[in-house]
Amino acid sequence: MDVNGTAYRSIWPADDGRQVEIIDQTRLPHEFLVITLATLEQAATAIRDMQVRGAPLIGATAAYGFCLGLHQGTTDDVLEEVARILVACRPTAVNLRWAVQRMLAVLQPLAEQDRLQAAYAEAAAICEEDVATNAALGRHGAELIRAIWEKKGENGPVNILTHCNAGWLATVDWGTALAPVFRAHQNGIPVHVWVDETRPRNQGAHLTAWELVSAGIDHHLIVDNAGGHLMQHGQVDLCIVGTDRTAASGDVCNKIGTYLKALAAFDNQIPFYVALPGSTIDWEITDGVGEIPIEERSQDEVLVVQGLIGDRVDGVHIAPQKTPAANPAFDVTPARLVTGLITERGVCPATTEGLLELYPERA
Amino acid sequence: MDVNGTAYRSIWPADDGRQVEIIDQTRLPHEFLVITLATLEQAATAIRDMQVRGAPLIGATAAYGFCLGLHQGTTDDVLEEVARILVACRPTAVNLRWAVQRMLAVLQPLAEQDRLQAAYAEAAAICEEDVATNAALGRHGAELIRAIWEKKGENGPVNILTHCNAGWLATVDWGTALAPVFRAHQNGIPVHVWVDETRPRNQGAHLTAWELVSAGIDHHLIVDNAGGHLMQHGQVDLCIVGTDRTAASGDVCNKIGTYLKALAAFDNQIPFYVALPGSTIDWEITDGVGEIPIEERSQDEVLVVQGLIGDRVDGVHIAPQKTPAANPAFDVTPARLVTGLITERGVCPATTEGLLELYPERA
Repeated sequence: MDVNGTAYRSIWPADDGRQVEIIDQTRLPHEFLVITLATLEQAATAIRDMQVRGAPLIGATAAYGFCLGLHQGTTDDVLEEVARILVACRPTAVNLRWAVQRMLAVLQPLAEQDRLQAAYAEAAAICEEDVATNAALGRHGAELIRAIWEKKGENGPVNILTHCNAGWLATVDWGTALAPVFRAHQNGIPVHVWVDETRPRNQGAHLTAWELVSAGIDHHLIVDNAGGHLMQHGQVDLCIVGTDRTAASGDVCNKIGTYLKALAAFDNQIPFYVALPGSTIDWEITDGVGEIPIEERSQDEVLVVQGLIGDRVDGVHIAPQKTPAANPAFDVTPARLVTGLITERGVCPATTEGLLELYPERA
Repeated sequence: MDVNGTAYRSIWPADDGRQVEIIDQTRLPHEFLVITLATLEQAATAIRDMQVRGAPLIGATAAYGFCLGLHQGTTDDVLEEVARILVACRPTAVNLRWAVQRMLAVLQPLAEQDRLQAAYAEAAAICEEDVATNAALGRHGAELIRAIWEKKGENGPVNILTHCNAGWLATVDWGTALAPVFRAHQNGIPVHVWVDETRPRNQGAHLTAWELVSAGIDHHLIVDNAGGHLMQHGQVDLCIVGTDRTAASGDVCNKIGTYLKALAAFDNQIPFYVALPGSTIDWEITDGVGEIPIEERSQDEVLVVQGLIGDRVDGVHIAPQKTPAANPAFDVTPARLVTGLITERGVCPATTEGLLELYPERA
């Protein structure tokens, strides 16, 4: 997507064909900084510290991190150690494990001297597939937006609420939840986005708002508390969010607070869609609330809010010094609250049957 | 309540018997600052800029602001002008209008020379009644907490989630939603409070957490997004919130985001109580969502987060410069989601019938 007139992806191989470049997402929206990953440790840190985030981009970064790790050697032992380090970086995102397992499956059968080159090829393939996947789900989602616009008599913008960032910065390009929005905007359908700020890390305020400014799409930032009120008063036509892990039952694990918006949408009969590449589906899990482990992150994310002060980025401490914080990073939205799943293969109900119709090879 | 060993209320007459002193709540939790209100304009500013906030305290401040205004004169015209200025400060809180109308009703029948003294007496009476009211509702609410503790086999703390600040700082003393918590703690029932930070103004992080630290009550700060997840996982036994205006139907208008927590509590069959003095009931309103006007506040409250940086309080800008924000300050929780109302006269269902049983004089 465009950044000041230049087309960017969120991750790409450096000119030397060895190192990898990413946008440091912890610096947005106040600073656009490209950084270079030269080692497995740097890739692991980028995932752990959320310089890259979003399930698909975590997967892509893990794939390139795998490549970087193989510069230390390409034996089976190294492969397993690299996989172990990467998988431990973030416990919730299924794409991380998916990407690592895919790399292992491709590389383990090969001779040691062929593994490094094959790793880079596979990481590149993961990225290209992600872009194609998101472009496809964007087309399917844009049809939903068009249908709502037509139902409104092509009168006024379609008001879309989203939570966290599931834009192109969360993927290699296009995004998941925002891909339909970008596509609808390109197709000339007027859209207006309510952007949940998404505490504690404010990915909505930092990343989604920045993407929408860059794309010239009308939007307002709101606090995470506001969505229910807007829905009660007819100011939301549609919710679209992403997902970090989707249970085979259609339960959706996404950024903390998604469940609350799904409850409000259900209570106000507003369509609530989840956009996802097939790779986020965890076919082994049928009870999202009971089975998906939820990452508990540092209390400092709650206690200290980052932003621009003067011309530098810094943090302010918002609570009394003696107050501790709890920080679960994700929640699970039960399938019963989800109107439908937008995938690269089309839109389906949030049920096992719906998913199997699109992914019959999993039956 | 105690602040560093000294008993404070949130508002009191100064030693000169003319001016009024308040705690500047915009400086908490980082600084405890008492300021003096000498004029009507200063009282109006304190209400408008939220140096005082919380429905009952707004009412008490309006009553004393009325006194300050009468130093300019005590004619009928001055009375009406003072009332007009005060009522315009905050549109949603019913206590503001209630307190102003009560002052008018007491003062208008009096001779002009008797009005100033009578005003101070009435303002003091409003404060004393508020303290007695909150102490009473605290006793009723503490019985609910005790019942839950006994149901848990007196095993572990009772986990209570609250939103915004409805502690003693929101009233003259004791608080509404937190009065039962303070009372239960004094009664030796172990309690643990999940404190919603309550964006955009973070009254939970700034005020509720500060009150709980001061009282030595176990608590954790959480982002507003986290409550649903905690409820799904059995970590919340009870929700108690306050209200700025309660419809005669039992619909509750409270800080933005309350509705989302009520939906989650309902979805997880967790008791959701609202604590209120009878003065917050608007007997003329029967459809809270449709009829209660919702204050839209400055977008700067969303875009700039206040906190401590080094040893000073300052704000950080969290969004791109070109991103605008919307900021509805309250939402309405429909009565169907409310387990019960805790009042100074006891606990009742959130229905017109329930309220009329406690307030039969309104039938």
